[in-house]
Amino acid sequence: MRNPEGGWISRGKVVPEFFKVASSETVFEVLSSFHRLEAERVKLDEALHRVAADEIVSPEDLPPRARATMDGYAVQASDTFGASGSIPAVLQVTGRVAMGALPAFPIAAGQAAQIPTGGFLPDGADAVVMAEYANKLNDGTLEIVRPVTPGENVLSRSEDVTRGRPLIPPGKRLRPQDVGMLAGLGILEISTRKKPIVAVISTGDEIVPASESPLPGQIRDINGHALRALVESAGAKVLGCEIVSDEPTLLTAALKRALSQTDVVVLSGGSSVGQCDHIVEVVNGFSGSEILVHGVAISPGKPTLLARVNGKPVFGLPGHPVSALVVAQVFLAPFLRYLEGEALDREPVGRQKQAVLASSVHSAQGREEYVRVTLETQGHGWLAKPVFGKSGMLSSLVRADGFFIIPVHAEGVAGGEVVTVYLF
Amino acid sequence: MRNPEGGWISRGKVVPEFFKVASSETVFEVLSSFHRLEAERVKLDEALHRVAADEIVSPEDLPPRARATMDGYAVQASDTFGASGSIPAVLQVTGRVAMGALPAFPIAAGQAAQIPTGGFLPDGADAVVMAEYANKLNDGTLEIVRPVTPGENVLSRSEDVTRGRPLIPPGKRLRPQDVGMLAGLGILEISTRKKPIVAVISTGDEIVPASESPLPGQIRDINGHALRALVESAGAKVLGCEIVSDEPTLLTAALKRALSQTDVVVLSGGSSVGQCDHIVEVVNGFSGSEILVHGVAISPGKPTLLARVNGKPVFGLPGHPVSALVVAQVFLAPFLRYLEGEALDREPVGRQKQAVLASSVHSAQGREEYVRVTLETQGHGWLAKPVFGKSGMLSSLVRADGFFIIPVHAEGVAGGEVVTVYLF
Repeated sequence: MRNPEGGWISRGKVVPEFFKVASSETVFEVLSSFHRLEAERVKLDEALHRVAADEIVSPEDLPPRARATMDGYAVQASDTFGASGSIPAVLQVTGRVAMGALPAFPIAAGQAAQIPTGGFLPDGADAVVMAEYANKLNDGTLEIVRPVTPGENVLSRSEDVTRGRPLIPPGKRLRPQDVGMLAGLGILEISTRKKPIVAVISTGDEIVPASESPLPGQIRDINGHALRALVESAGAKVLGCEIVSDEPTLLTAALKRALSQTDVVVLSGGSSVGQCDHIVEVVNGFSGSEILVHGVAISPGKPTLLARVNGKPVFGLPGHPVSALVVAQVFLAPFLRYLEGEALDREPVGRQKQAVLASSVHSAQGREEYVRVTLETQGHGWLAKPVFGKSGMLSSLVRADGFFIIPVHAEGVAGGEVVTVYLF
Repeated sequence: MRNPEGGWISRGKVVPEFFKVASSETVFEVLSSFHRLEAERVKLDEALHRVAADEIVSPEDLPPRARATMDGYAVQASDTFGASGSIPAVLQVTGRVAMGALPAFPIAAGQAAQIPTGGFLPDGADAVVMAEYANKLNDGTLEIVRPVTPGENVLSRSEDVTRGRPLIPPGKRLRPQDVGMLAGLGILEISTRKKPIVAVISTGDEIVPASESPLPGQIRDINGHALRALVESAGAKVLGCEIVSDEPTLLTAALKRALSQTDVVVLSGGSSVGQCDHIVEVVNGFSGSEILVHGVAISPGKPTLLARVNGKPVFGLPGHPVSALVVAQVFLAPFLRYLEGEALDREPVGRQKQAVLASSVHSAQGREEYVRVTLETQGHGWLAKPVFGKSGMLSSLVRADGFFIIPVHAEGVAGGEVVTVYLF
């Protein structure tokens, strides 16, 4: 796109806006060529939201022996067959199961033992009659007014978890209940993939730290702070944010330093073609470096660069905050989760929502368009309302609940159609 | 429910299972009677996922003056009216706007200045012609082949954010783009509500630390680890997890200590009526304490206790891990987010999903039932498949993606109906 005279376009003719740019599918393919991070062992209480590196197999049976799932009486189910309110089954209460102890007495035919929820069944018992359906009389006999089937209100040995069976698949991000299950089985350490360490570098002569009052023509470092937050949101760690001016030697030094300390480098800056070229030059200065993607057929976010330098992924995001954040949300966040072991999906299932589009949105063909919307409830479903305002407005991202995608070859989406909204 | 003889039920008659228990609506009402936590100031880089305590108003205009949103040429729009490929408008390029500097030269009629995305418009210019539609000739003249309207490809002063206007409403949890916006306006510290500090206490003579091999009759502390993770998942902090045996004096001491150090105390234990009563006794031993809820009409999770002790909320969750986790997910997590400033909703919008129920599920009337499901994509939507297995199985929570609710008065939900699935 750059001609020998240093202009931005070929002389005398209009160059199509999206020329030789990669599709988002291509970007995801390229991203999947990077290796996931290596595994490390973490303690159980740090395992929440970490991704299992290997399949976790149960070392034990759960429960280790049959337990009651209700308060009531442990019985032999056959003793209760045919019991009813008018003709109750009558059993003898011979004991009481205590929590935290194995019952020392067995249950024979005609006998019952009081048992709390979670209590271990005495030998011989195969079911629990709920307290509601058993009336204990003063002489120690028990009237049962409803039959139970064998196994009723009981969790049998290994019914919950069987020793040697898969428990957690690799690539699963652990939730509270998964952590609880591991605790229950005495698994106090698990193998997870490392969290990606990310360097965030804002480039541009016009960028000043957020703590400074910008002089005329300058702008505060929005991208550094927003990208740090986005990286942390995706479960990765940020190792330093810095601002580097558009000077190839300074950029080269910053990139070199970042590559030596982190797994992923995220540069932002270069919305204009001239600035973008600086980053290309700097990347090309590293031996063996490879520009993998130079421009993506999306809007906003076209001037996006993806490179492999010293074997590591380097993102060159647009300098414009709206574009930088959208590209980071669409490509960087899933990629960070992928490095940690998850599948390379656009967005986790939990953050997608089907919604009816409130009004038609038009799009230029030849690029995938990310349309910001707010979500409102409508009956049992959701209504997606396009956010009003120019696409370059940061406030449009602040007002939006998410975005939907107009596919590359579509001219738009009509109001009333159902769209998938990605929350962000 | 406890009779003078120490039995569990009234003598000689069946007591309805859900007698004098609170509805989930009542529980939410009771929870909303607690005050939110006080505000504290946090630095911008710690503001991600924190909740704004007050409305944040913009102290500045953004942009501070008109900026280009495209690479191209700053012009007076009226100079381009009627321009076309066959009859281009011809302008004189009189300068180039650099990033990070205020252009020193004005644009008069018939003039244009090269401008990068983000560059500040020179005085006099009111639009930007995209580079694609402008051909610069060698003699410094510019041919423009498409007209622009005033304001086109320009973000006017304060168009994005206007000084003095509300930016972030109170109660909003900050996302990366919100953090970026604050950085752009030089807001380096915000007022957020404190994160709740929570004590997690597992009670029960049968509970041993997860690091120990349980003796027969004992069980590892699943709840302590799972509830810690759940509390952290909801954005709150856990100050210590401990295991206390079912001894009123020990329980009283543990509760007293916890109340002095934390905002919320979460006890678990007492699936059986006897254990539950211990906690009631302990709570009643604190002067001015109040049992707010004793039993909730939900399944699983009925034996849930909610109390106010020393003015602080105390949750008494069932000892059974499945029940404890479901109750914590349904009531505790939203309550912790409420204390931090969010609305008291069952689940954040982002974690709800509409799905078609794959097969019919029956329910006992008189209680709200939480049915665990897995989610699979089906066409453009989601299919919710009930998780197979007894309700007391912890593995059912591990296998599930979420749950849907069968309302209190319904007998069930038919396959093919649309349900709201809460991810967990």
